[in-house]
Amino acid sequence: MADKDKIQALESQASALKAAYEEFRALGLALDMTRGKPCKEQLDLSLDLITNLARDEYKDKSGTDTRNYGGIDGLPEAKALMGTLLDVPAEQVLIGDNSSLTLMYLTVAQAMSHGVALGNGPWSQQKPKFLCPSPGYDRHFSICEHFGIEMIVVDMNDDGPDMDAVEKLVAQDASIKGIWLVPKYSNPTGTTLSDAVALRLASMPTKANDFRLMWDNAYAVHHLGSGPAKLANVLELCERAGNPDRPLIFGSTSKVTFAGAGLAAMGGSVANMDWMRKHRSMMTIGPDKVNQLRHVRLLGDRQGLFEHMHKHAAILAPKFAKVQEVLGKRLGSSGLAQWTNPSGGYFVSLDTLDGCAKRVVALANAVGVKLTAAGATFPLGKDPKDRNIRIAPSLPSLTEIEQAMEVLCCCVKLASLEK
Amino acid sequence: MADKDKIQALESQASALKAAYEEFRALGLALDMTRGKPCKEQLDLSLDLITNLARDEYKDKSGTDTRNYGGIDGLPEAKALMGTLLDVPAEQVLIGDNSSLTLMYLTVAQAMSHGVALGNGPWSQQKPKFLCPSPGYDRHFSICEHFGIEMIVVDMNDDGPDMDAVEKLVAQDASIKGIWLVPKYSNPTGTTLSDAVALRLASMPTKANDFRLMWDNAYAVHHLGSGPAKLANVLELCERAGNPDRPLIFGSTSKVTFAGAGLAAMGGSVANMDWMRKHRSMMTIGPDKVNQLRHVRLLGDRQGLFEHMHKHAAILAPKFAKVQEVLGKRLGSSGLAQWTNPSGGYFVSLDTLDGCAKRVVALANAVGVKLTAAGATFPLGKDPKDRNIRIAPSLPSLTEIEQAMEVLCCCVKLASLEK
Repeated sequence: MADKDKIQALESQASALKAAYEEFRALGLALDMTRGKPCKEQLDLSLDLITNLARDEYKDKSGTDTRNYGGIDGLPEAKALMGTLLDVPAEQVLIGDNSSLTLMYLTVAQAMSHGVALGNGPWSQQKPKFLCPSPGYDRHFSICEHFGIEMIVVDMNDDGPDMDAVEKLVAQDASIKGIWLVPKYSNPTGTTLSDAVALRLASMPTKANDFRLMWDNAYAVHHLGSGPAKLANVLELCERAGNPDRPLIFGSTSKVTFAGAGLAAMGGSVANMDWMRKHRSMMTIGPDKVNQLRHVRLLGDRQGLFEHMHKHAAILAPKFAKVQEVLGKRLGSSGLAQWTNPSGGYFVSLDTLDGCAKRVVALANAVGVKLTAAGATFPLGKDPKDRNIRIAPSLPSLTEIEQAMEVLCCCVKLASLEK
Repeated sequence: MADKDKIQALESQASALKAAYEEFRALGLALDMTRGKPCKEQLDLSLDLITNLARDEYKDKSGTDTRNYGGIDGLPEAKALMGTLLDVPAEQVLIGDNSSLTLMYLTVAQAMSHGVALGNGPWSQQKPKFLCPSPGYDRHFSICEHFGIEMIVVDMNDDGPDMDAVEKLVAQDASIKGIWLVPKYSNPTGTTLSDAVALRLASMPTKANDFRLMWDNAYAVHHLGSGPAKLANVLELCERAGNPDRPLIFGSTSKVTFAGAGLAAMGGSVANMDWMRKHRSMMTIGPDKVNQLRHVRLLGDRQGLFEHMHKHAAILAPKFAKVQEVLGKRLGSSGLAQWTNPSGGYFVSLDTLDGCAKRVVALANAVGVKLTAAGATFPLGKDPKDRNIRIAPSLPSLTEIEQAMEVLCCCVKLASLEK
């Protein structure tokens, strides 16, 4: 159906649409779909974290008193646990505080001021650029913007970033120092990198010899019922390709345990981890080891982690199904939008007709449904086609999701009609 | 007694000294006096932190679920608690993770890359210098070294830094951007700034209009029995002097609760805190609020905090007394050393005869008594007189302290004799 036909089909329903919209306004809704925040039921899965240590249980297996100073990169058993999550050997893991974003920010900050391990000095003196597969994660882009790193948009395909474009760019420009990646169940499209894309990222020639994959594996185990998708081991791929220091691997338990009080971690080559440890030791004596002990107690090993994530999936899957249900029912045959149907992660990515996303978000907001700002999924908040909207269904209840999605679909139609 | 006389007095005891030293070696000691680490009994004072929340007690007074994302500068009640510690209004406090060193590092890093609030742009482009009252805290100096900030040593007097020197330097050099201060019970000399010194720091004209007092109030409430010393409120002094953005105030509960799992905080003017909050929001969604709730529950208010610190004093005071006892007995009439007798903080600062400190530390180390590296209390690890040794008595037991101090005193005599 051509855009013209779609709009004509809408025009016949115009007054009904406007009436429906006004009815939503009358409901006085206050719904928030802006952020990938876990809901109460998910947080309750980890309630044991609060009480799972007794007064005399403050030592780790090796006898370290977790209450005192020390341990710049974390307790061995916490490193093993987070190594499972990151697919990195325990000894090549560094545990941070509660936020993997902080570890990514510090990595870029340190690269800017001092340069990366085995690099060519401070990036700040080399007019650095980053590749930004888009739509992507706004906070990645904000870090680049903050440090004045030029961002080059590349498309996200169904199997990951457009590798033809990526390979061409990195081969010819030594100032391209890195690429942001959410390799599994990506934010917001839910894409998992194919093995072929991962291999190309690991082995492609780069003009910069200090090029880095910022491998933000935020949703490593965060499936919606079918078990975690298979993702290539990027550290091994890069080692085999002769680029051992290329990947910097990040993750956290923010969406495994407590979003505000989890463990963040980073992994990579020995050289990269030595580099990170050296920088960390300038700024801290060590992370909170008591919380690490609580996490090891709660999650145990790989098996425990996977069992825990199945419980998350059982809570989240119906919410994601509800999003699909309403989108399908209201927009399925309209030709006005396309959307993803992810098998993991925290988002559904919706593309409206070109030039409609901002208006849709504004219309929804005006009747009490907050959505992530249109454009947020692109560098500098600028979606060139003004069409991408990120839907975050984890926090609201099923009833709220249904309402919010009905509003959203109505707004998509209204905005298309206006257009 | 002139140095020559002191040495002659020693020579008559030379063989007895050497025999004593060899006896220490035969004991096979393994004592560590290098760092201001709390001892087990101190950590036990806060054991309730591990268990003081029940499964259903994860909300703060306002109903915020502390487990979830959010709250870039912390829970209101935690800000109030840390405001008490920092002597800053709660709303001008930002809670960090577990390390105030991290907040100081980030402050300098951000000033280097972006400049301070209401400043003149990035310090990195202005060949910045810092004043470093010495002896001082090695980790402050390491941050400057890391970022290539030139360090200018100024003397520490009994009432704080040599203000005549400080005033002269800052008045004439716009590249002097800050000064490191541990204003109460300073590391290592135990000095508390007099009101007069604090007033001069707050009101002195500085050539740089973005000059900062890095006010590391690490030992704000950490007395040894007589109650916390009175320290001027630097925020108020600076406001009154028309320099509201001059002080950046840091502190933590590392030596109040758990050294590795406490709360760090920062305070300052509204402009400074807006600046910090803006930078923090690039790197984290917020700090661990569950741990904040645990701390509020444990310490309560000012009264609770003060009562808690009296218990620390009861544990630490005998240890500091033992240091004084052995130093007095073994070196009191020798003229070979001078030392501080602090009423709070974590250290005793010992000055040997010039040129002896490195040798003393090496001698002690050779018989199993580890001391902070000589020179560590000066920028770049270089004590121009090679005489300062930092003694950290908090971790060892009374018996261990007695042994270690006997070894140290013997080594002071031996090194003086060699000299």
